[in-house]
Amino acid sequence: MKKVAVIMGSDSDLPVVSKAVKELRSYGVEFECHVMSAHRTPELAAQFASSAKDNGFGVIICAAGMAAHLAGVVAGHTTLPVIGIPMKSASLDGLDALLATVMMPPGVPVATVGIDGAKNAALLAVQILALSDEGLAEKLAEEKKKMADAVAEKDAALQGKLESL
Amino acid sequence: MKKVAVIMGSDSDLPVVSKAVKELRSYGVEFECHVMSAHRTPELAAQFASSAKDNGFGVIICAAGMAAHLAGVVAGHTTLPVIGIPMKSASLDGLDALLATVMMPPGVPVATVGIDGAKNAALLAVQILALSDEGLAEKLAEEKKKMADAVAEKDAALQGKLESL
Amino acid sequence: MKKVAVIMGSDSDLPVVSKAVKELRSYGVEFECHVMSAHRTPELAAQFASSAKDNGFGVIICAAGMAAHLAGVVAGHTTLPVIGIPMKSASLDGLDALLATVMMPPGVPVATVGIDGAKNAALLAVQILALSDEGLAEKLAEEKKKMADAVAEKDAALQGKLESL
Amino acid sequence: MKKVAVIMGSDSDLPVVSKAVKELRSYGVEFECHVMSAHRTPELAAQFASSAKDNGFGVIICAAGMAAHLAGVVAGHTTLPVIGIPMKSASLDGLDALLATVMMPPGVPVATVGIDGAKNAALLAVQILALSDEGLAEKLAEEKKKMADAVAEKDAALQGKLESL
Amino acid sequence: MKKVAVIMGSDSDLPVVSKAVKELRSYGVEFECHVMSAHRTPELAAQFASSAKDNGFGVIICAAGMAAHLAGVVAGHTTLPVIGIPMKSASLDGLDALLATVMMPPGVPVATVGIDGAKNAALLAVQILALSDEGLAEKLAEEKKKMADAVAEKDAALQGKLESL
Amino acid sequence: MKKVAVIMGSDSDLPVVSKAVKELRSYGVEFECHVMSAHRTPELAAQFASSAKDNGFGVIICAAGMAAHLAGVVAGHTTLPVIGIPMKSASLDGLDALLATVMMPPGVPVATVGIDGAKNAALLAVQILALSDEGLAEKLAEEKKKMADAVAEKDAALQGKLESL
Amino acid sequence: MKKVAVIMGSDSDLPVVSKAVKELRSYGVEFECHVMSAHRTPELAAQFASSAKDNGFGVIICAAGMAAHLAGVVAGHTTLPVIGIPMKSASLDGLDALLATVMMPPGVPVATVGIDGAKNAALLAVQILALSDEGLAEKLAEEKKKMADAVAEKDAALQGKLESL
Amino acid sequence: MKKVAVIMGSDSDLPVVSKAVKELRSYGVEFECHVMSAHRTPELAAQFASSAKDNGFGVIICAAGMAAHLAGVVAGHTTLPVIGIPMKSASLDGLDALLATVMMPPGVPVATVGIDGAKNAALLAVQILALSDEGLAEKLAEEKKKMADAVAEKDAALQGKLESL
Repeated sequence: MKKVAVIMGSDSDLPVVSKAVKELRSYGVEFECHVMSAHRTPELAAQFASSAKDNGFGVIICAAGMAAHLAGVVAGHTTLPVIGIPMKSASLDGLDALLATVMMPPGVPVATVGIDGAKNAALLAVQILALSDEGLAEKLAEEKKKMADAVAEKDAALQGKLESL
Repeated sequence: MKKVAVIMGSDSDLPVVSKAVKELRSYGVEFECHVMSAHRTPELAAQFASSAKDNGFGVIICAAGMAAHLAGVVAGHTTLPVIGIPMKSASLDGLDALLATVMMPPGVPVATVGIDGAKNAALLAVQILALSDEGLAEKLAEEKKKMADAVAEKDAALQGKLESL
Repeated sequence: MKKVAVIMGSDSDLPVVSKAVKELRSYGVEFECHVMSAHRTPELAAQFASSAKDNGFGVIICAAGMAAHLAGVVAGHTTLPVIGIPMKSASLDGLDALLATVMMPPGVPVATVGIDGAKNAALLAVQILALSDEGLAEKLAEEKKKMADAVAEKDAALQGKLESL
Repeated sequence: MKKVAVIMGSDSDLPVVSKAVKELRSYGVEFECHVMSAHRTPELAAQFASSAKDNGFGVIICAAGMAAHLAGVVAGHTTLPVIGIPMKSASLDGLDALLATVMMPPGVPVATVGIDGAKNAALLAVQILALSDEGLAEKLAEEKKKMADAVAEKDAALQGKLESL
Repeated sequence: MKKVAVIMGSDSDLPVVSKAVKELRSYGVEFECHVMSAHRTPELAAQFASSAKDNGFGVIICAAGMAAHLAGVVAGHTTLPVIGIPMKSASLDGLDALLATVMMPPGVPVATVGIDGAKNAALLAVQILALSDEGLAEKLAEEKKKMADAVAEKDAALQGKLESL
Repeated sequence: MKKVAVIMGSDSDLPVVSKAVKELRSYGVEFECHVMSAHRTPELAAQFASSAKDNGFGVIICAAGMAAHLAGVVAGHTTLPVIGIPMKSASLDGLDALLATVMMPPGVPVATVGIDGAKNAALLAVQILALSDEGLAEKLAEEKKKMADAVAEKDAALQGKLESL
Repeated sequence: MKKVAVIMGSDSDLPVVSKAVKELRSYGVEFECHVMSAHRTPELAAQFASSAKDNGFGVIICAAGMAAHLAGVVAGHTTLPVIGIPMKSASLDGLDALLATVMMPPGVPVATVGIDGAKNAALLAVQILALSDEGLAEKLAEEKKKMADAVAEKDAALQGKLESL
Repeated sequence: MKKVAVIMGSDSDLPVVSKAVKELRSYGVEFECHVMSAHRTPELAAQFASSAKDNGFGVIICAAGMAAHLAGVVAGHTTLPVIGIPMKSASLDGLDALLATVMMPPGVPVATVGIDGAKNAALLAVQILALSDEGLAEKLAEEKKKMADAVAEKDAALQGKLESL
């Protein structure tokens, strides 16, 4: 099975990005996780992206905030699917990162998830890898069912709380 | 090779969505294209999404405008990767569709591309399928190179025009 | 009298949604309250909405955040009036939920109230039910008068505070 | 059956508002339609709203643009359900009207539909009236089915067009 | 000299609005301050506005949040200059109130100040009254000079702090 | 009676600003109209503002687009009431000009009207001057009545058009 | 004197960018102009930026639209001042490009001008070069004076037009 | 070497602006730092800007919030490059200051950095001065390398933390 790369623009992104790490781990997907910047280590990012396919990666997840260029820059150097996580930062509530990540020009897509959507980025990577791994696909289906069951349990629990509202 | 489904919420989306169709065709990827609505034909959309994996689909592309629920609803019924194209409509310049498509809750990702980004949605689908199809991966690399060459040609052409500006 | 359904996409919405519950209770309106998700339990939501009219419901209130699809999805499965409460979440201050709730396509309306406007959603449901229940209509008129009186009292109280500003 | 009032802040709103008129007519719902302004004819608007219930109205639809106060002002004078249509005007793409219509304070709800959503406003009024008129409810169900059938027809038509894209 | 009316839509606005009260007091301008709501006490607001000129008011300041209709409604009932203060509330950072206050239709202006700009609203009222009160005009000029001096003092103080940065 | 100054940042603003000119003229208010720029002719703007009171002006109206600094700069040099008209320009639909005009710091108010709201700016100036000119106040009241009558006439005309919709 | 580089992400940006070219030419500043893309020709852009200083450039102007990464990517590869022009494209009115250009992380500044602000980008480059070229500085001062004179001429011309408004 | 001026509109901006001061100091660049307001001390700001070139300044950095006019006003009085720092204030998250700073009219550029981007403003000033100071240019290159090294160190540190996530 191909590996997933999880790249963040700054190590301050780790508290959010760690949700992606945990999700990948829970699916038993092999991954590497790196701090790498489109602006501060552009050569490194370019080199990593250019060689990612040859190095056994199948999907690259990029998390960045503000003028979030990381996912787009990585996408410019690879034909692998690139998933972008726009990170909320001190101003503008993540809108800047969302637009900077998602509004890519024709020819260079970035699969963008919601602001701070690290868990969903990992899940999307798993869904992609599951296309050629039926075991992973089955686990996704199980988790989807568990998620529905959890909602049903919460609904049941809610009924008990309603009296006391 | 798995098929790609291209679903649009309204047939008025066709002029934009046709760019996805053409892109998929240029890569020789098999696809189906449908009009289907999260709000007007919800059962149909649910049924299509639920059975998409069994029907040989690998990726589902959903285009919708305004309160664009189509991609999210489809994602709720499948574990396949779902790509969302937010469509610009009469008001708000596509921002409504972008937010309604991308801001999915944890557990149900939608791989969102830019507003009216139909070509990129198709390209992302091809990138995903190429993970298990080396021929497709090679074609992606070739196209990436052609795209770079086209920019270089435009740069050369620009030099001739500069005089007359 | 017909019942009101109050549905929330996540049990984390309860602190806000409980204002709707209390308002309905204060009017003696019968209601059910459920956790149900457009994305995590789509079949359940569809089934609930489809059978709501036959099950004695007159109005369905749906609260959801982010790419808030719940109200729209429910509206797709019923001809009952559906009221949407856009919930503020961690980013974008509820604007995402507002646009995802209100910008519905022609043919499938959602009666949207303000961000986190749970009390108003309940009041709107009561206003709707009051059209065929004169007792409820009278109670609405009384409450409207009380509300005006409360403002007048606050104005009176303000006069005492002005000196010390 | 109770009547629907359709009020617009300016006669320049008629091209959009006429969609509400047509929709109401198609359902055989009795209505009155007026130009009335929260700012230019405030007494008239107040008087109309205050006496609307006694004059046989069941729902009041208000369309206004820019700092759209009409629906809110009308809602301040009645306990009938008030539906607000935010109208797009020369600047800001209707966002001003949307926020001015939907963000009502607790105690005075406005059931807001999408920007320029006149057809949906009328449909919502019909859904409300149908709660005590089974014939209307049946017609709503029929139209919902027709709407789904129309999508299916468009899907069929699309298949023929795909070749030539 | 004519009086200034300071009206707020809710007594929760007082912490901000009290800055207007203090400013008016510092200029020795006579004023009244009231809680009054465009939605909850519309008749009162209308009556107050309609009779304000005859009651000796020269300027009316209105503070309101969310779908801030108060200033616009008051302006609909008077030919006095009306100053609107958009109040920041729980969502959207005051943008809703700003747009709902400032985007008035032709014929009914509201002189809008910045979000939570209570001090400036009072100052604008004083500037207006000062047109026919030279003593007030002189005091405005003095205060303007003091304000400039305060900046100069802060600049001087800054020079001392620079070393320790 | 004091004069009104109407200043625009660029002569391309004239088509909008001419509505202010016409409105002032219709009220018989004396005015001067100038092109003057906060950025291109800052000394001129400063000088004009500083001497405006001594030169017989009572109100200064400033129209500017983009980073609209004109009203704020003029307000920095005078204690006269300054009215700002945010002008819509090629991008951002006037939101930039609105925020740059209205969000003034404490101590330097700008009475801001809606985007491109030239007529309302003039009307506000007239309302301000009318505080010490009862004839003007009466004319304002007459015009307000005419405005209401015009709405009533449009309502009457609408009734004739409804049949043919 | 050092050269200016003018880079645009797409040759469709030329109609706007040509204003920068003309401005540079009018100051007699030597420049090169290229089409180069952060996403389609990333190596070329990196190489150009990395060697720009050694190749005699002093300032690099980058114009790009949508998720405008060009200026940021170039800034990542050079210590020369980089000026970013956010280009308006089919959606969102240039807000996406503005945020993607200006919100750079600490350590990698981009000197951002207004949306489509090509002339200002060139002027800023000239101002930078003029720091070590007094002739250029004098020409800037002359042009600034001419610009003020042009406003004064427009003001004079306006006086003639006022009669006929 | 020319000096840098750092001007802030209010001394409350100092906690952010001090990052610019520290950055300039770390490069050994001579600077002056002042509180000066476009609205409260307009003559002072005009005078400072007009004489800045003659007083040995090469770059002027201006920090201001809300309707941030300081940078634009300063730019109107000088041909030196002016760098604007939009400051986040109590409302709107700095978007008002960003638009008021960056959207300058043709002929008067402001080199705008990100919201609260004081460090980048200083760095940009250093990059500009470095064009005629090779020592400074070398120091910039060294710092750029250190910045890349720091990212690499953080990446190494991350590898140790991954286990415990």
